[in-house]
Order: sequence, then structure tokens, then C-alpha cells
Amino acid sequence: MKLQKVAVVSKVGSKESEQAAKDVAKKLLAKKIITYTISPIEVEGAKKMEALEELKKENLDLVITLGGDGTTLRVFRNLENETPILTINVGGNRGILAEITIEEIDDAINQIIKDNFFLDKRTRVTASCGGKEFPPALNEIYISRANLTKTAEIEIKFQNDTVKQKMDGVIIATPSGSTGHSFSLGGPILHESLDVLIITPVAPVYRLASMVVPDERIEIICSHDCNIAIDAQVVKTAGFGESIIIKKYKKPAVFVRLKKRGLRQMSKLGF
Amino acid sequence: MKLQKVAVVSKVGSKESEQAAKDVAKKLLAKKIITYTISPIEVEGAKKMEALEELKKENLDLVITLGGDGTTLRVFRNLENETPILTINVGGNRGILAEITIEEIDDAINQIIKDNFFLDKRTRVTASCGGKEFPPALNEIYISRANLTKTAEIEIKFQNDTVKQKMDGVIIATPSGSTGHSFSLGGPILHESLDVLIITPVAPVYRLASMVVPDERIEIICSHDCNIAIDAQVVKTAGFGESIIIKKYKKPAVFVRLKKRGLRQMSKLGF
Amino acid sequence: MKLQKVAVVSKVGSKESEQAAKDVAKKLLAKKIITYTISPIEVEGAKKMEALEELKKENLDLVITLGGDGTTLRVFRNLENETPILTINVGGNRGILAEITIEEIDDAINQIIKDNFFLDKRTRVTASCGGKEFPPALNEIYISRANLTKTAEIEIKFQNDTVKQKMDGVIIATPSGSTGHSFSLGGPILHESLDVLIITPVAPVYRLASMVVPDERIEIICSHDCNIAIDAQVVKTAGFGESIIIKKYKKPAVFVRLKKRGLRQMSKLGF
Amino acid sequence: MKLQKVAVVSKVGSKESEQAAKDVAKKLLAKKIITYTISPIEVEGAKKMEALEELKKENLDLVITLGGDGTTLRVFRNLENETPILTINVGGNRGILAEITIEEIDDAINQIIKDNFFLDKRTRVTASCGGKEFPPALNEIYISRANLTKTAEIEIKFQNDTVKQKMDGVIIATPSGSTGHSFSLGGPILHESLDVLIITPVAPVYRLASMVVPDERIEIICSHDCNIAIDAQVVKTAGFGESIIIKKYKKPAVFVRLKKRGLRQMSKLGF
Repeated sequence: MKLQKVAVVSKVGSKESEQAAKDVAKKLLAKKIITYTISPIEVEGAKKMEALEELKKENLDLVITLGGDGTTLRVFRNLENETPILTINVGGNRGILAEITIEEIDDAINQIIKDNFFLDKRTRVTASCGGKEFPPALNEIYISRANLTKTAEIEIKFQNDTVKQKMDGVIIATPSGSTGHSFSLGGPILHESLDVLIITPVAPVYRLASMVVPDERIEIICSHDCNIAIDAQVVKTAGFGESIIIKKYKKPAVFVRLKKRGLRQMSKLGF
Repeated sequence: MKLQKVAVVSKVGSKESEQAAKDVAKKLLAKKIITYTISPIEVEGAKKMEALEELKKENLDLVITLGGDGTTLRVFRNLENETPILTINVGGNRGILAEITIEEIDDAINQIIKDNFFLDKRTRVTASCGGKEFPPALNEIYISRANLTKTAEIEIKFQNDTVKQKMDGVIIATPSGSTGHSFSLGGPILHESLDVLIITPVAPVYRLASMVVPDERIEIICSHDCNIAIDAQVVKTAGFGESIIIKKYKKPAVFVRLKKRGLRQMSKLGF
Repeated sequence: MKLQKVAVVSKVGSKESEQAAKDVAKKLLAKKIITYTISPIEVEGAKKMEALEELKKENLDLVITLGGDGTTLRVFRNLENETPILTINVGGNRGILAEITIEEIDDAINQIIKDNFFLDKRTRVTASCGGKEFPPALNEIYISRANLTKTAEIEIKFQNDTVKQKMDGVIIATPSGSTGHSFSLGGPILHESLDVLIITPVAPVYRLASMVVPDERIEIICSHDCNIAIDAQVVKTAGFGESIIIKKYKKPAVFVRLKKRGLRQMSKLGF
Repeated sequence: MKLQKVAVVSKVGSKESEQAAKDVAKKLLAKKIITYTISPIEVEGAKKMEALEELKKENLDLVITLGGDGTTLRVFRNLENETPILTINVGGNRGILAEITIEEIDDAINQIIKDNFFLDKRTRVTASCGGKEFPPALNEIYISRANLTKTAEIEIKFQNDTVKQKMDGVIIATPSGSTGHSFSLGGPILHESLDVLIITPVAPVYRLASMVVPDERIEIICSHDCNIAIDAQVVKTAGFGESIIIKKYKKPAVFVRLKKRGLRQMSKLGF
């Protein structure tokens, strides 16, 4: 892959990953690559973006993230197209989305330039409500009642079927998100390559299993005001009775992979 | 049981149970029983209390509740001592706490006067924080992180053991509450007579089973600000790092039972 | 669809479905359709097969089953190709695989002849061991240790990953089977149309979630002798350490559908 | 505690624990304690029992087990009274029932003689069928259908309640057994001190939660022939329709404890 324009993003508030980001930016600049950093990171010769939102304005060849999974999720949420991300684990987090450690960066850049990599495309999901589409999630959309003292009735519509029950909320997870919040609430592990979504009811009055469905339109209606958490990082709201539409996002998340390792999520399970 | 002073409580905002409460109050008055109603219910000859909080000021022989389980929970929260409750299901709710229907009221009062009943005493649980004890719960105390975008780490201490993990919250349920919120989140069903508590972790990052322990002191510490929901009706708060102490409430909830029916919660399971 | 050759199969040992099968056979014969019955059912003018195994020898246009889901599973196990089945619920079983009741048979045959139907194709799964392939399953293959006093260690290999743990067994279910044995042991509900398989561990020493994977080769190795139950109807065996290969069967199960009803399995959940 | 008569039991077929048993026997003999070994272990000066069954004939002060949890379960099954056991983990097993390692034996014997220990008494459970009582279990009684192709209907009766459903089997576990087979099938973790039993349904057609009940009589009736596994070591059988009675065993299992460690089962959960 020809690397002409690359952005480098570090974990918010982490000195360690900010320093690592500066080092990576310098390496890129030394290879005559147009390099972008995000404020407050500044590197001589690099272009500075004021906020992550600007990522989508540039026609980038690659984004390099330094931090944990939270940083990766945050970047993908701000990428509308298929710009690939190389994820570097910095800061001791588990990082099941990470591909390499900081020590492997030189080799990784060389391998990418030589086309010794593959792209790992993952389904993303997006919610919309009242005609407005919210930013996409790589892992999950978590809809939950806003008021702890009201028992909400949630309607889940898929194709011609409707499931309606009193419950605290519902999670719509992608295969990537199957080891996240959905798993914690009893959902199955899904192979990363599948084109499906998981519907995991949260605290249904009468227990209700997770359902795995094709990645088509899912409609959620909650009898009380609710919160819509996107990858547990951004929270939107919907009013009672408002229709929330969840569907596959138009573009997948794209990871640059240098190693063939099979099911990355398995590490979550101790394998 | 000699019925000298009896209070009648109806479901908030339900015309049907308000009317039923008036009818029951009149029946009691006709038997020369000192009868209390709660505002806005007024019956000629009965004494009116302005709020449920006043229940604890009178030395009542019995409280009669008309409504669903919510009404019963609300009354018990305002009873500090062992005043028994006769629960009447009014209004079509499921009412697993209810003992009789409104048609059975005359017979029920006569049976109670003739001592043809038994008392069903149930463990209650109470939380305290910062030296302040909150009202007791018949079903459960549900501690949950206040902020949907922060992953909370929750420490659960019992006797000499500590369980510490990232999770959304934790439920401490009584046997009565075992078919409620704890069940919805994967907890076991407990026989109503047991002197134990259930600790049900909510959405632990690595799945964690419910734990059943003797009804002793449990300490919960949450790494972020949290909400403390009492029987899903009243919400208190605790700051991050603050110790929340959960323990058996000094006095049980007492139900007047006219029928020997065994495990009432089983109806929840379809039996 | 032109109906030239049709077989009629009834539930084993059920007088009610045997009589219904005879009635259906007569209706088919009256339409000049070559009709097959299975011993002991005999109808004048119909051809009698001695056993279900003979179904695969004839080039049938349709098989009509009368009974519960067990009958349907049994017929599919004996069909190697894509011969469609029309399922009639007879005998009071739940029958989530059933399409019509016996009262609807005349109309159903007319609709089929007029091409007013659609074919619902479902993934099937088959196990092989020691070079021998066992009959296919519509619902699931359940591998379980043969000896109740031996703790078996089971290795599950998929693509490049291996999961290895002490457990009692493992279920490989199709989407159709997701509401069956896999569900009873904690597995998710899968939309019937998906091209995936569910791996549900049975009683793993350390709890292990169900995994949903593409319908590719899965290898199972059990440290002790084990049983291989095919749709809970036929049991084969494998020795300790022997490799059992599970994969999608070459041909799907094909149902004739007259009604568009969405997720048939939902009925299992009470919807 | 005065140690006059002590038996030493090693893991079957383990050279390592047999050698350790011999060493321990010699230490006991050197202290003038009457020492018993079990065939094939022979030590000069010690009395040899031919089989574990003979343990109950002697009025022993202590039994020392060397091996894993299987050895401990086996010994308890052959002890009818409250003879305490000191458990020594030999052979690398997890051994959540073990108290000390072989290196700690000298100190342990001295502490026991000086009364620096406490007794940890655990509820045991026993099944009887057709008037015959089977040996007791420390962990669980697991009743399972004998035939993999028959769907069994199991009736569970407790006090005045009956639960009846199609399922593969049912586990009745003690608190000690709560981290064992019952846990693997979805049951809760129970504090070791509780006087309760857990009823964990195995693969119920419609999911059914574990139930925790007082340690009273439980009756199980299976519609098909079934196996009754006692601590997964001994298997008995019952015919279809036969009543199997499970109840608390008359005498608890007694562990000698030298360390105050709280919930030993927590180690199972990674704490």
C-alpha cells in the first residue's frame, strides 16, 4: 500500500501514548509521508488536526492508533469510509482490538509498504431516531431506560416478528462486539467474519435468550425515555414511543492485519 | 388477632383500587375498627393520613393494601416494625405478593379475627452509606454506575473475601426478591423462608455467577459514582469510592397468609 | 410444482397419524399421483416402501409427513437430496416444524400444484468419524462422554483456533436446531436463514459461552469414549482421541411453505 | 485432639501419592499413633485395610487423604460418622477441597495435637430409591435419563410444590458442590456454611433457573429409566416412574482446617 497521508491518534490524557504517537509521527515524516496529528499532539513537520472529527475530511491512506480499545473505537466512530487502521497497544490495557506493540512499529510500516498485510473488515452498526443518524458503533448500540424506577416495555421488531417484554434495555451488537457488553449479559461469542447482528435483551422480566439475526433493519421502541449508548462512549437519547432504527453501517471498520491469528476474540475467553 | 387499628392503602393513581379501598374502609368501620386511609382517600368516620410515612407513627394491628406488588413494596418501605400486611390484588397486575382478591375480603377479615391465618415473615435488606441508613427493601437493593460511559470497577466484600471486577452494577436480593430483578439478570430462585442474601453481579466483564450468602454484612465499593435503587422505587446515590453497607433489616416484612400454598414465587415460573 | 411422485409418512406407532396418512394417500391417488406409503401403512393403489431408507431411492417430488417434529426429523435424515417436505401436525405435539394441520391438506395440495408456495431451505449438519459419514441432522449433533464417572476433556477446533476444556459434551447445532437442545443448555436463538453453526459446550468446568461460527469444518476430539447423538434419534459412538468432523451437509433440508410467517422458532419463546 | 487411630488414604493408581502416604504413615507410627493404610499400600507397623469400606468399622480419630478432590470425595463416601479428614493436595490437581501441601504435614500434625485447628462441617446429601439408601455425596447427586434418544419428563417435588418439565436430568447439590457440576450447568455459588440444597435442572426444554431450598426432602420422578451419579464417582439406577428421595445425610462431612481462609470455593472463580 502506498502511504501518502497517515494520521496518528493517541489515547486521550495518556502521556505514554502521546509520546509514542510523537515517535511514530517522526518515523512517518522521515519516510516523506504526509503526517497528521491530533491536538494537543504537535510534531514539527506534521499537520495538526484540532479534533478527531477532522479525520473524515482528509483522504487518508491509514490511521495509526496508540492506546487501548477505547482509542480504536473512538477513531472508527469518526471514520465514515473504509480508511484502514493499524492498532498499537500502548498503556497496558488488554486491547483485544490491538494488532501490534510499539516495538513492532518499524517492521509494521515496512510490511505495509511492501503489501505484506491483509485487511480485516468488520460489520459496524448505526442507530437513527427521528430522522437523525447517530455515529456508527464497532461493538454495540445499548438502549436502556433512562429512569431506574420505571419498568420499561421494549418492543423489538425484526422482519415480520415482534418481541415485546418488560426489560431494562436491549443491546444490538456486531460480531466484533459479541465479546463486549453483550457477552457480559449472557450473549454468545460470534465469529468476527459473520454478517449478522446479536440482539441481547437486558434484564427481561421473563428470561429471554439472545437472538442472532441477519444484519438487516431492527426497530426498537421503548415505552419510556431511553438512552442510546454508542460503543459505551457517546450517549444519545430517545423519547418514549419513539422508533429507533438500528442497521448495518454503510461502510465496515477496516483493520490492517499483519499476523494471521484466527479468532482474536478468543483471547477474551482465555485461549 | 384483635383488629383495633387498621390502615387501608391503595395503588397511587388507580381509581379502581381507590374505590376498593373505600369499600374496605367502610367494612372495617362497620366492625367498629379504628380505620386509617391515606390521602387523597377519604371515608367518613375514618382517620386520614397525609402520607405513607405516617404509617410508622401509629401502632397498627394490620395494613390492608389494594393494588399490585408495587403498592405492597411501597407500604413495607414505610413500616419499620413487624406490622402485618394483608395484600389484595386489584387492577389486573400479576401480583405475586398478593394473598386474596377483592371478592374474598369479607371472609378474610373474619378469618383474621378468628385467628385462622399465619404470619409469613420475610427477610428485608437495607443499605447505608456515609452513616445514613436508607429505607429497607423487601426485594432488592440495586447499585449501578451513574455514568453509562464509564466502566466501573465494583468491589464486593463479604466476611474475609473480596470479589472485584469491572461490571455495570450489583444486586443484593432477598429470597423474596429472587424472582425479581436478580432473576432477570441470571440469579437463582430462592425458597422464601431462607435467611440468606443473593449477590448478583450485573454485566460483569468476565461472567460471574450469582453468590448466595448468609444474611450478614456485605460491603460494596464502586469506582465511580453510583445509584442505589431500593425496590426499584426510590433512588439514592453514593460517590465513587464510598463504602455502601448492605445488611438484613432489623425487622422482617410480615404477610398475613390465609392459604397454605408453598412457594408463591413458583407462579413466576409458570407452575 | 408438478406432483408426480409423492410419499406419505406417519408418526411411528400413532394410530391417529397412520389414519391421517391413509386419508392423505387416498387424496393423492384420486389426483392420479403416484403415491408411496411406508410399512405398516397400506393403501390400495399406493406403492409400499418397507422402510424409510427407501425414500432416497425414488425420485420423489414431495414427501408429506404427519406427526410431530420427531417424524419430520426422521424423514429428513433419510433424504439425501433436496426433496421438499410438507409437514402436517397430527397428534397434539407442539410441532414448531409443522406447516399445516390436517384440515388444511386439500387446500395445501391445490396451492402446491398451482405453485402458490415457497421453499424454505435449511442448513443441515453431518458428523463423520473414522472415514465414515453418519446420517445428517436438521437440528444438532450432540457429542457426550459415554461414562458418567470420567471427566472428559474436549477439544474443539475451528479454523486456526482450539478450545480445550473439561466438559460433559458439546452440541453443534444448526439455526433450525437453535431452539432445541442447544437452547436448553444456554445457547442463543438463531434466525433460520443464517449459514452458520452454533457450538454449545455442555457443562464446561469453567463456564464457556456458545460460539456462533461460519458453517465450515469443526473438529471435535474427546479424551474419553463418547456418544454422538443425531437429532436425539440415532446414536453413534467414537473412541477416545478419535477425531470427529462436523460439517454442513451437502444438501439442505427443504420445507414447502404456504404461509409467510417469519421466524417460526419464535413460537418457542412465547411470541 | 488426641490422635490414637489415624488412617492414611492415597489417590488410586498414583505412585506419587502412594509414596507420600507411606511417608505420612511412618511419621504417625513414629509418634506411637495406631496407623491404618489401605491396600495396596503397606507400611511396616501399620495395619492394612483391604478396602475403603473398612474405614467405617474403626473408630478413627482422623483420616489423612493424599491426592486430589476425587480422593477426598471417595473417602467421605465411605465415612458414615463425623470422622474428620485432613486433606493434602498431592499430584498437581487443583484440589479446592485440599487444606495443606505435603511439605506442611509435620507442622499440621503438631498443630492438630495441640488443638490449633477448627472443624469445618459441611452438609452432605443422600439419595434413596425403592427403600434402599445409596452412599452419601459431599458435592451432588446427578440424576440423568439413561437413554439419549428418549426425552424424559422429570418431576421435582419439594414441600407442596411440583415442577415438571422435559429435561435431560437434574442435579441436587450441596453448598460444597455448588462450584462443581451444578455451576457448570448454570447454578449459583453458595456459601459453604449454608444449610440448603440447590436444585439445578439439566437442559430443560424451556429454560428453568436453579432453585435454592432448605435442606429438606426432595422427591424426583423421571418418566424414563435414569442414572443416579453420586459425586460423579458411583452410578446407581432407577426405573421410570420410580420415586427417588434426596435428603440431607444424617452426618456432615468434617474437614480439619488449619488456616482461616473464608470461602474456599472462591478460588474456583479466580479470586
